[in-house]
Amino acid sequence: MKIEEKVLSTIKRFSLLKPNETVLCAVSGGPDSIALLHILKALSKRLKVNLHAAHFNHGLRDSEADEDENFVKSICKELFIPLIVGKENIKKLSGGKNIEAVARKERYSFLQETAKKIKADKIALGHTASDLCETVIFNMTKGSGIKGLRGFLPKRKNIIRPLFEVSREEVENYLKNHNIPFRIDSSNFNIKFSRNLIRLKVIPYLKKINPSLEETILRETQTLRELEEFITETVNSILKNCILTQNTFSIQLENLLPLHSFIKKAVIQEAFLKLTGESLNTKKLSAVINLLKSHKSGSIDLKNSFKAIKTQDVLIIKKEEKQQVHFKIPIVTIPSEIETPSGTFKFENTKDGDFVFPEDELKKGLFIKTREGGEWLSLPFGRKKLKKFLNEKKIPFHLRNRIPLLTTDENEVIWIPGLYKKTYIKESKRKVFVRYEGGIKDFDK
Amino acid sequence: MKIEEKVLSTIKRFSLLKPNETVLCAVSGGPDSIALLHILKALSKRLKVNLHAAHFNHGLRDSEADEDENFVKSICKELFIPLIVGKENIKKLSGGKNIEAVARKERYSFLQETAKKIKADKIALGHTASDLCETVIFNMTKGSGIKGLRGFLPKRKNIIRPLFEVSREEVENYLKNHNIPFRIDSSNFNIKFSRNLIRLKVIPYLKKINPSLEETILRETQTLRELEEFITETVNSILKNCILTQNTFSIQLENLLPLHSFIKKAVIQEAFLKLTGESLNTKKLSAVINLLKSHKSGSIDLKNSFKAIKTQDVLIIKKEEKQQVHFKIPIVTIPSEIETPSGTFKFENTKDGDFVFPEDELKKGLFIKTREGGEWLSLPFGRKKLKKFLNEKKIPFHLRNRIPLLTTDENEVIWIPGLYKKTYIKESKRKVFVRYEGGIKDFDK
Repeated sequence: MKIEEKVLSTIKRFSLLKPNETVLCAVSGGPDSIALLHILKALSKRLKVNLHAAHFNHGLRDSEADEDENFVKSICKELFIPLIVGKENIKKLSGGKNIEAVARKERYSFLQETAKKIKADKIALGHTASDLCETVIFNMTKGSGIKGLRGFLPKRKNIIRPLFEVSREEVENYLKNHNIPFRIDSSNFNIKFSRNLIRLKVIPYLKKINPSLEETILRETQTLRELEEFITETVNSILKNCILTQNTFSIQLENLLPLHSFIKKAVIQEAFLKLTGESLNTKKLSAVINLLKSHKSGSIDLKNSFKAIKTQDVLIIKKEEKQQVHFKIPIVTIPSEIETPSGTFKFENTKDGDFVFPEDELKKGLFIKTREGGEWLSLPFGRKKLKKFLNEKKIPFHLRNRIPLLTTDENEVIWIPGLYKKTYIKESKRKVFVRYEGGIKDFDK
Repeated sequence: MKIEEKVLSTIKRFSLLKPNETVLCAVSGGPDSIALLHILKALSKRLKVNLHAAHFNHGLRDSEADEDENFVKSICKELFIPLIVGKENIKKLSGGKNIEAVARKERYSFLQETAKKIKADKIALGHTASDLCETVIFNMTKGSGIKGLRGFLPKRKNIIRPLFEVSREEVENYLKNHNIPFRIDSSNFNIKFSRNLIRLKVIPYLKKINPSLEETILRETQTLRELEEFITETVNSILKNCILTQNTFSIQLENLLPLHSFIKKAVIQEAFLKLTGESLNTKKLSAVINLLKSHKSGSIDLKNSFKAIKTQDVLIIKKEEKQQVHFKIPIVTIPSEIETPSGTFKFENTKDGDFVFPEDELKKGLFIKTREGGEWLSLPFGRKKLKKFLNEKKIPFHLRNRIPLLTTDENEVIWIPGLYKKTYIKESKRKVFVRYEGGIKDFDK
C-alpha cells in the first residue's frame, strides 16, 4: 500500500480529521515531521482540511537550530503552507537542568497557543509506529502499568498522530523515493540516552527474534487500548454511585467489597487521582485492600496528608484534618493579652473577668497551653486526672487537644474556659481577672 | 533478606505448599534448580513438607548428560533426598526436529508421572524472577497478549515456582556464599537462541535504563495477573448465562451487545476455546465484532469449519454442517449397483423398479450426480430449469446440493427420486428398471 493510503486509512479508522477542519502540523525538520507535512499536503484536498505548519526553535545546538528553522521555512514556502515559528532559549530557561523536559513542555505549549491563535482544530505530530514500539519498550523497562504498555494514542484531545501505523522504514523509503530533503537532529545521539539505547541497541536484537516487531507491538497496543477503555468504563460506572466532593471520596462497602481486587484498586486509584491529581503506588493500594479485608474499622495514611478510613459501612478517602498546633505560653506580666490558636486571653488586675485567681499563683509559673498529658485538677475531695475529667464531661476526642488550659508549672489545671474553675478560699490579696474570647463552642467549626 | 526467608515469603504469599504435602523438586543440576533443592531442604522442617527430587536425562550432549545425572545423584545422596531419574533419547525421539520442544514435553510428562507414582502434591521448578523477566520480554516481542505479558505463574495446578521472586544474581550469590557446586548447561549458548539473545544482549542494555528491571517487571506482572483474573471472572460470569454444548455456543444479543468490545471479544475467544481448544486471531475477532455491529443477520467463517452466525436475537458459534460431497457417476453397464453418499441405485433389465427408461437413453451417456448448475427437465409444454423446478417444489436450500439426479450427458434430468420422472412414449424396446434406496425423506437427518 502506498504510504498516503495507509495514513488515510489511519485517519479514517481513528477519526483523526473531519472535513473543513484546520490542522496544525508540527514540523521539526526531521524525517518524520517532513514526511507528515508532505503526506498531509497530498491528502488535504481529499480530506477537505486546511493545513498549517508550526516550527519551534529551541535555540539549542547554536547555529543548527537556526538552519533547521530556515529549512522548514523554505519547505513550507515551496508547498504553499502557512508557517508559524516560535522561539525560546531553552538552555537559559532551564538553567541547564532537564533541558529535554523543559524543551518538550515549551514546545507543547507553543503548539497549543498557536493552534488557539489560528483556530486549528487539531495538532498533528509525526510519531510513527517505530516510536510507539520504542515507547512501549521504554515504559515496560521503567514499569508504568497498562497505560505505559499501550504507549501513546493515535488521538488524544486535539493531538493527532497520522503516522501512527507507519514504520520509520516506510517513512525513509517514502522520502527517498520522492527525493524529499530533511534534516538530521544531531542531538539524537547525545540527549535522549534511554530512547537511543532502545532504538539502536535493543530493537535490532528483538527484530532478530521477530522481524515484524513494529506490527506486532502495534497490534498488541490495540488490544491494550481497548482493555484500558473497558477498565475506565467499568470504574466510571462504579464511581457514579459514590460520593465525590472536592475533598472527600466515599463509597459504600456493600458496593466495593464484592468487586475483584483489581477493580477495587482501580476505583481507589481513580478516586485518589480525582481528589489530588496524583497516583498511589502499588504498595499503598495493597495496603487499602488489606484494610478492606480486615474485620475491623481502621485507617491508613495514603499520600499528601490524605487518609483512607474504613468504618463499618463506608470507605472514605479524605484529607487529614489539619493538626491543631500545640502551644504553651507563660504568663509573665499583668496586665497582658495572649493570643492562642484557641482564643485570646486578657489578664488584668482591675476589672471583672470570666475567672479570678490570687496573684500569688503567678509565682508558681502559670501557662496557657494545650494538654500534654499528666495534667490534673483540684476537686473538693482530692485530685482528678484531666483525662478522666474530660471523659466524664464527654468531650469529643478530636477537641481535647485543642482546648486551652490555664495551668501551673506543676501541671495543676486552674481554669478551662466554660468547663472548670479552681475554687479559691477568698483572700484579701491582689487578684488577677481573666477574660477569654473564643470558647469551646467555636472549636468544632 | 536471606534468600531462604524470601522463598518462604513467596511460598506463603502464593500458598505454594501446605504442611504435610510432598513436593517433587525438578533438578537439572544447573544453578537455579540446585539452589532450589538446597533451599527447600533447609525449609522442609519449618514447612513440614516431604522433599523428593527428580532428574530427567535427555540423552543429549553425549557424556555431559550422564555427568549431570551423576552430579545430581551425588548431591541428593549427600542431602538425604530420595531421587528418581528418568531417561530418554530425545535426539532419536524427535528425529532431530524441534529438539527443545520435544525435550520439554518429555521432561514435563516424566515429572507428572513421577509425581503421580510417589503421590507428590506439588512439582517445584527452579524458575527465577530473571526467567520471568526474559519470558515477558520474549512474549512481548512475539506478541502474545495479556497472558504473555504476565509471563508464567508462581503456581499453576500442581506446578509451583518457589524462586519466583528471587533474581538469578541472588541465586548465584547464595551458591557462592555457601560454596555449593552446580553444573553449567553448555547447550545454553546454542539451542535457546531467542532466550539467550534476550538474556545476554537485550537485558543488559535495559538494565542501564533501569537497574532494578527484574523487580519492576515482577511488580508489573503482579498487576497483570490480577487483571487477567478479573477478566476471566467477568467472562465466566457472562458465559454462565449462555448455552454451551459440545458443538455449539449461543448467546442472546441482548446480553452480548451492551458489553464493551474488549469483553465481547474475550467472551467469543473463550467460547471458541471451549469449543475447539484453539484461539482466534485478532482479525477474526474484529470480524465478529463488525458482524455484531451491522444491522443485518449474517455469518462469517472462523476456523476449523466453525462459523459465527448472527440472527435477529442470537449469536451462534457452531461447526459448519459437513458439506455433502458432490458426485457424478457414469452408468456404464446394466445390471449395476451404484452407491452414492445420497443413496444406492440398482439398474436392471429384468425386474420392476421405481423408474423405467428405454435402454437407448444409455447411448446419450447417463450419470447419477448432484447438481452442478445448468440442468433442465422436459415437461409437457417444453423445458424447465432444474433451479426453477426446485424453487416451485419449495425444496430447502441446504438439501438442493444433496439430491441425487439421473441425467443425460446434455444435462437433461430424467429422474429425481420422489420428485420427478421423465415421461416416455411407450415402446417395445428393452427397458431399464431403476431402484433407489435412501430417499429425500432421509436427507435432513
